[in-house]
Amino acid sequence: MAENDDPAPSSEMLRDYQDPGTPPGNLRPAQGESGLARMIIASYTPEGVGITEGRDLAAVTRLRGDGRVHWIHVVGLGDVELIEHLGRVFNLHPLALEDVLTLGQRPKSEDYDAAVFCIVQHLAYGPTGLASTQVSLFLGDEFVLTFQPAGPDLLAPVRERISKGRTRVRQKGACYLAYALIDLLVDSAFPALEALGAHLDAIEEGILESPDPQDITNLQHARRELLLLRQVLWPQREVVGQLAREDHELMPEDVRIYFRDCYDHAVQALEVSENFREMASGLLDIYLSSLSHRLNDVMKVLTIISTVFMPLSFLAGVYGMNFDTSQPGNMPELGWRYGYLGFWAIAIGGIGTMLWMFRRRGWL
Amino acid sequence: MAENDDPAPSSEMLRDYQDPGTPPGNLRPAQGESGLARMIIASYTPEGVGITEGRDLAAVTRLRGDGRVHWIHVVGLGDVELIEHLGRVFNLHPLALEDVLTLGQRPKSEDYDAAVFCIVQHLAYGPTGLASTQVSLFLGDEFVLTFQPAGPDLLAPVRERISKGRTRVRQKGACYLAYALIDLLVDSAFPALEALGAHLDAIEEGILESPDPQDITNLQHARRELLLLRQVLWPQREVVGQLAREDHELMPEDVRIYFRDCYDHAVQALEVSENFREMASGLLDIYLSSLSHRLNDVMKVLTIISTVFMPLSFLAGVYGMNFDTSQPGNMPELGWRYGYLGFWAIAIGGIGTMLWMFRRRGWL
Amino acid sequence: MAENDDPAPSSEMLRDYQDPGTPPGNLRPAQGESGLARMIIASYTPEGVGITEGRDLAAVTRLRGDGRVHWIHVVGLGDVELIEHLGRVFNLHPLALEDVLTLGQRPKSEDYDAAVFCIVQHLAYGPTGLASTQVSLFLGDEFVLTFQPAGPDLLAPVRERISKGRTRVRQKGACYLAYALIDLLVDSAFPALEALGAHLDAIEEGILESPDPQDITNLQHARRELLLLRQVLWPQREVVGQLAREDHELMPEDVRIYFRDCYDHAVQALEVSENFREMASGLLDIYLSSLSHRLNDVMKVLTIISTVFMPLSFLAGVYGMNFDTSQPGNMPELGWRYGYLGFWAIAIGGIGTMLWMFRRRGWL
Amino acid sequence: MAENDDPAPSSEMLRDYQDPGTPPGNLRPAQGESGLARMIIASYTPEGVGITEGRDLAAVTRLRGDGRVHWIHVVGLGDVELIEHLGRVFNLHPLALEDVLTLGQRPKSEDYDAAVFCIVQHLAYGPTGLASTQVSLFLGDEFVLTFQPAGPDLLAPVRERISKGRTRVRQKGACYLAYALIDLLVDSAFPALEALGAHLDAIEEGILESPDPQDITNLQHARRELLLLRQVLWPQREVVGQLAREDHELMPEDVRIYFRDCYDHAVQALEVSENFREMASGLLDIYLSSLSHRLNDVMKVLTIISTVFMPLSFLAGVYGMNFDTSQPGNMPELGWRYGYLGFWAIAIGGIGTMLWMFRRRGWL
Amino acid sequence: MAENDDPAPSSEMLRDYQDPGTPPGNLRPAQGESGLARMIIASYTPEGVGITEGRDLAAVTRLRGDGRVHWIHVVGLGDVELIEHLGRVFNLHPLALEDVLTLGQRPKSEDYDAAVFCIVQHLAYGPTGLASTQVSLFLGDEFVLTFQPAGPDLLAPVRERISKGRTRVRQKGACYLAYALIDLLVDSAFPALEALGAHLDAIEEGILESPDPQDITNLQHARRELLLLRQVLWPQREVVGQLAREDHELMPEDVRIYFRDCYDHAVQALEVSENFREMASGLLDIYLSSLSHRLNDVMKVLTIISTVFMPLSFLAGVYGMNFDTSQPGNMPELGWRYGYLGFWAIAIGGIGTMLWMFRRRGWL
Repeated sequence: MAENDDPAPSSEMLRDYQDPGTPPGNLRPAQGESGLARMIIASYTPEGVGITEGRDLAAVTRLRGDGRVHWIHVVGLGDVELIEHLGRVFNLHPLALEDVLTLGQRPKSEDYDAAVFCIVQHLAYGPTGLASTQVSLFLGDEFVLTFQPAGPDLLAPVRERISKGRTRVRQKGACYLAYALIDLLVDSAFPALEALGAHLDAIEEGILESPDPQDITNLQHARRELLLLRQVLWPQREVVGQLAREDHELMPEDVRIYFRDCYDHAVQALEVSENFREMASGLLDIYLSSLSHRLNDVMKVLTIISTVFMPLSFLAGVYGMNFDTSQPGNMPELGWRYGYLGFWAIAIGGIGTMLWMFRRRGWL
Repeated sequence: MAENDDPAPSSEMLRDYQDPGTPPGNLRPAQGESGLARMIIASYTPEGVGITEGRDLAAVTRLRGDGRVHWIHVVGLGDVELIEHLGRVFNLHPLALEDVLTLGQRPKSEDYDAAVFCIVQHLAYGPTGLASTQVSLFLGDEFVLTFQPAGPDLLAPVRERISKGRTRVRQKGACYLAYALIDLLVDSAFPALEALGAHLDAIEEGILESPDPQDITNLQHARRELLLLRQVLWPQREVVGQLAREDHELMPEDVRIYFRDCYDHAVQALEVSENFREMASGLLDIYLSSLSHRLNDVMKVLTIISTVFMPLSFLAGVYGMNFDTSQPGNMPELGWRYGYLGFWAIAIGGIGTMLWMFRRRGWL
Repeated sequence: MAENDDPAPSSEMLRDYQDPGTPPGNLRPAQGESGLARMIIASYTPEGVGITEGRDLAAVTRLRGDGRVHWIHVVGLGDVELIEHLGRVFNLHPLALEDVLTLGQRPKSEDYDAAVFCIVQHLAYGPTGLASTQVSLFLGDEFVLTFQPAGPDLLAPVRERISKGRTRVRQKGACYLAYALIDLLVDSAFPALEALGAHLDAIEEGILESPDPQDITNLQHARRELLLLRQVLWPQREVVGQLAREDHELMPEDVRIYFRDCYDHAVQALEVSENFREMASGLLDIYLSSLSHRLNDVMKVLTIISTVFMPLSFLAGVYGMNFDTSQPGNMPELGWRYGYLGFWAIAIGGIGTMLWMFRRRGWL
Repeated sequence: MAENDDPAPSSEMLRDYQDPGTPPGNLRPAQGESGLARMIIASYTPEGVGITEGRDLAAVTRLRGDGRVHWIHVVGLGDVELIEHLGRVFNLHPLALEDVLTLGQRPKSEDYDAAVFCIVQHLAYGPTGLASTQVSLFLGDEFVLTFQPAGPDLLAPVRERISKGRTRVRQKGACYLAYALIDLLVDSAFPALEALGAHLDAIEEGILESPDPQDITNLQHARRELLLLRQVLWPQREVVGQLAREDHELMPEDVRIYFRDCYDHAVQALEVSENFREMASGLLDIYLSSLSHRLNDVMKVLTIISTVFMPLSFLAGVYGMNFDTSQPGNMPELGWRYGYLGFWAIAIGGIGTMLWMFRRRGWL
Repeated sequence: MAENDDPAPSSEMLRDYQDPGTPPGNLRPAQGESGLARMIIASYTPEGVGITEGRDLAAVTRLRGDGRVHWIHVVGLGDVELIEHLGRVFNLHPLALEDVLTLGQRPKSEDYDAAVFCIVQHLAYGPTGLASTQVSLFLGDEFVLTFQPAGPDLLAPVRERISKGRTRVRQKGACYLAYALIDLLVDSAFPALEALGAHLDAIEEGILESPDPQDITNLQHARRELLLLRQVLWPQREVVGQLAREDHELMPEDVRIYFRDCYDHAVQALEVSENFREMASGLLDIYLSSLSHRLNDVMKVLTIISTVFMPLSFLAGVYGMNFDTSQPGNMPELGWRYGYLGFWAIAIGGIGTMLWMFRRRGWL
């Protein structure tokens, strides 16, 4: 396993991976995860709901086939024993279980006989920038299994809806539950995009006020986050689109219409992120043109100063020469009565003429 | 719901969205809309037409199945009660109703059993730039329902055509009416594009006259509007293309030919906007090359001035030195009869030579 | 209708359009066209040919079904009465007739029951740049109708071939005639591309000799024309490709092979125009790098002059100081016998050293 | 016919074309070709081979149907009589014959009933740059016809393989021969690409050593050649891919596998040329950044010189002023004993301080 | 054969190729390979495994059809005799054998009757940059043949898994073995990408600290490696995708699911490399904007110095003029009591004013 302890920019782009040659289906704790997992089980019928929390492996075995819909949410990906147990009970493919435990995967969906498996990324924009959290989901006959790394429960809002009386989610079975969960995860992109948009706006404002290299560093950082976002949102759109189109016995037609709605959201999130990418490269153009403009301004000042004072200095230099004034032709101006006044008249007249010419050229 | 009160540039790109985890089909007033809605009902046969305006929910119930074509246009998206009532009477899917009340959606069309639903964006270019207004449309058997936010009635021209005697729109049923409305909305892109084109032309003129940072800000703003335009026009083309191709019982073949015509318009609007985008990036190139050219000009002036006066100043400095002229070899020029004249001859000759060289290099 | 009287750059990109909400099939004179149209009728069998010119509406009615192939070419799009009459006689769809009268359309082809309709753009490169002229064509059973705006007859070369003895065009019926006409129009792109290529070559030469802002304006103009060209050539290729592929009863297989040949031409014209677009952006790169190079040259001159004369001027300034030489340590050089010669030796030696260093750095 | 006698850059991109309106199948000598053609006929069975050279039209007629495979290679495209004769004998379509005589065509393949026709471009990189030579090929039942412009025989290596004993080409019939010829032509891209790559490497080296405008001209030339290459290689890949996929009675399955191999070569040539295009635009970036770097260096020298000597010159100027030193407060320094030494101490100290500051800023 | 002995940048992009016109299936030692090859044979059933190493051609013949799965790994591509022998024994197509011996091929897969053939590139990032090693694989009924150039055995990890007890690879037959080998090769991209990412991060750090031309050379080099990577990873994805999709009798459904997993890895490697390409062009933008910023800084220093000292030098020059002070109007300041102090007051006041203005403009 590759150890990515340093927060190098490029490493965000690379998923966690096992050494080439490792046999597939080899279950190990996910990178950075350890300890026992927490398991939240919601079992419901249209009439009632029961929610338990804990890590009772035996209880899981008893759940199968009691006529209720079971949603088991596992928080923490370091508990290989639990995950292997779930795999045996629900008959899950070892490749899928390996995917559950490998973080940084691109969203995907896979049809196994016993279950539809998919990986979706939850997005959030925190103080350190964009963070994506991998959530895996198995949809089977009467059950939904979800897995997330240790941390706050990302799927709590759906559990609340389940426990709140006879809502639609209670009445429509496991597939609708899967929809509700995936919809929640897909929609998590919108607040993240909003925050990222605000960040881009702030960078733009900074550049327009005064372009400095920090802006470029920030911009580069934001562009990298947009790349990451695209890496997540493109396949996510594919996943939801596939779920909406595909004719699978686990997915009744009246629920597929909801997946189509969710697909629209996934498309919209992707479009917004693509537009942000264009905005971000627009900002670089502004930055460069702004620098170029400032350079022009600086050079105009230099040129004006030089153009005004170089000829005058030359003139002053001339009258500082030591030609022998006893020779009649040598510097007679020095002896004139109004020589000095004449010099100033020429100097001030010259400055005026220059400034007038610069103004006509639009340099002032 | 996200509150986007600040007019930040990025927020235009993001549609209004509900908090992730909100159950679908949850009807609430659209963002920024409130109060009762206005409902304009046009009921017609080839022989006659009746237009009523108001908010009589009971009257709506009575309309169904009286053999006339009914077009109900709802202005204002804050009146959830009215919209729920229409949903019940015309058997509309709750997801579609939720879409009606969520502004900033990308154009789309969806086939429900009872009706074809589509969302189209009306475009206008006002003093504050490009504005798009979401209009939703349900086409059913003998009825068309349309919804727009509060404001001037965008669809009035079609109602006028209906009331003006035995025109084609009166004779061809609900699907042709839907075509007429969508065509009106798609064509609204052309005046908007024309105005945006004029704006780009004005920016170009400004840049060619004198490039200043305001031009770049304007250009950046126009580019963002072109991104928004693309975000609307791409899916709009898809929507109309789908309506023109799809074989649906509500859409007879002789009306589909009109949708094909409307599709051509949608394609053309998109192409023009893509060309505008290329023009806009061409303008940035002009701007940068223009700045670069001016910098060259400024630097040439500076270099000419320096090249002419630096050697002369040096010469004047030389003859301002105080070497002891009593020593025979020290600065004998100072005592020459025509020393001073000689100095000027050298100075003027030098200036002339320099200018001649600059002219030969093409710097003047 | 939008009045585009000003020759603004953006307006070339926008087709003529009617006010949104205007009912379709509403015939009006095309923009800028008025007066009666000229009608050139060529009626032929393999054995003989008759060509008449005029505006005899009644004669048109009598043409139908006399066993000859009729080609009616209408020059002038302001004569709505004539066009409506043709529409009635040949049973043309009103949407197609509206398209005939709307200039600036993108090339398209449409299958109506009675006829295949297509719009192609004739291209020419004149002194004011690229000009495209819309030609519409209806191919029916035994007839071809073509329409062009007032002006010189663009299709005359084909009529000549018809009248010149028993050529292939006389023997193969209406579809081959349609091919010959479309081939002529598609091939008109090649001389236009040749002229545009020569124009690009001239701009390149100008830039390589001396880059000035006029080059950029010309280049920008050429790029805009290439955008226009693409707007025409892309859909034109589609149109011809569709005619070559589609299995239509009006288009026998042995003529479709000719359309395939014509398709190759359309593809080639498009490819050349795309390559020209790449060449044009290459020219901008040359322009900018050339400016940058000149700036470097200018700055080198300035730096060389400054580096040589600033230290020397300082030295001359030093020996122009008025320290009291009666103090023994103060400026004893002034009293030395060869002080002045020494000064010049240092000056000339310094200049030489500088120039040698610049040469070694490759600045000279 | 367009006369492209001048070697203008744009004209390389345009194929030779006939005046719009010229009837198709109109045979004329190819552009720049004239005189009688040379015809090399190789007739073989697995057992034996006979090769004749000349221009015996009658002999050609006798070849048909004698059970041997005949490969007729025509060198020279000015001999319309010969080509028309071949067309009659082998029943070739007039459009194909016209294509044979029109140089500069994009590679294509066309299925006629009697024969498969294709055009491929032979590539070579000579001292004047990239040259492509059009070779046309007809594959029929037991015969292959090939045509090339006057010049050295491009296909000789295959004829050698035929005459060298019982090789595979002798045993597999006409289709394998066609494969061998097309493979030879497709593979001609590799030495051309190698030479072009070496040219790009040379330009890169030149830019890294010292960027001058000639590099940019060379680079622009190479980019244009890469455009030309793409214009050839894209459709060439299509042609070979079509031959490899298509199920045609003239092409047995066991030969199609060879075309798949040839297709891989065509794809690889295209990929390499696309990568060269990216390398070429990378070179422009290097050039510009290198210029920008040099400008920075030049400006640093100027700034260092100015910053050092401007204050010193000012100081020297101060002590060159002529204030009346008889007034006690006026320039007492001039009368000090160590005034002059003090001046130099300040000057040298100032220079040292400046240089130390520049070094700290990394300018030295 | 082309001799690419010089390490020119462009040559990495070109595969090894034979002279155009060479007959296909012509076996020669691969470029740079010679001598006898090493052959490692692993023969196994679920129950047992035997591994032998050597070059015993006769032994190979005896392997066929003994009910075990045989994996023959050939290290060294200069031993044409061995490869021809294997071709005869396992009935391999000569075109495939030629591909085995031609290095630098793009990854591909080909279906022959007796075997599936594919070429995959092993990637590694060493001290001299990215290196790709071509590995060829034949999957047949009960056998897998692999070939690699001389060097360390790239496939050893899979052989270890085979010899380590009753693992899955021992139980699933030849197709699963092929999967394990291809998965190993595809996954070799990840450590290479990680190293390349770290290299890009190092370049970025260097640019942000101080941009110098070496950074650009390094960046250019990295961009070229990313091009090479794309040249490998794009077709590699295709190859694995084809193996995962295709319905072939040699590939049972329960193994295809593993190829789908491997396909996900190939897609991810490609995506990461595309993102690195975007990051790399972002770095060039940073470099240029950083240079531009530094130029601005340099020019500000120059302008500040000039603006401060030019007027002062002029003033000092004025009071160094030699006007005849015996004339009352001529330079009376020279005789004033506090003239000199006044001069300094003006000078210091002027400097202060200037600096204050520069600070207000944000130049300091």
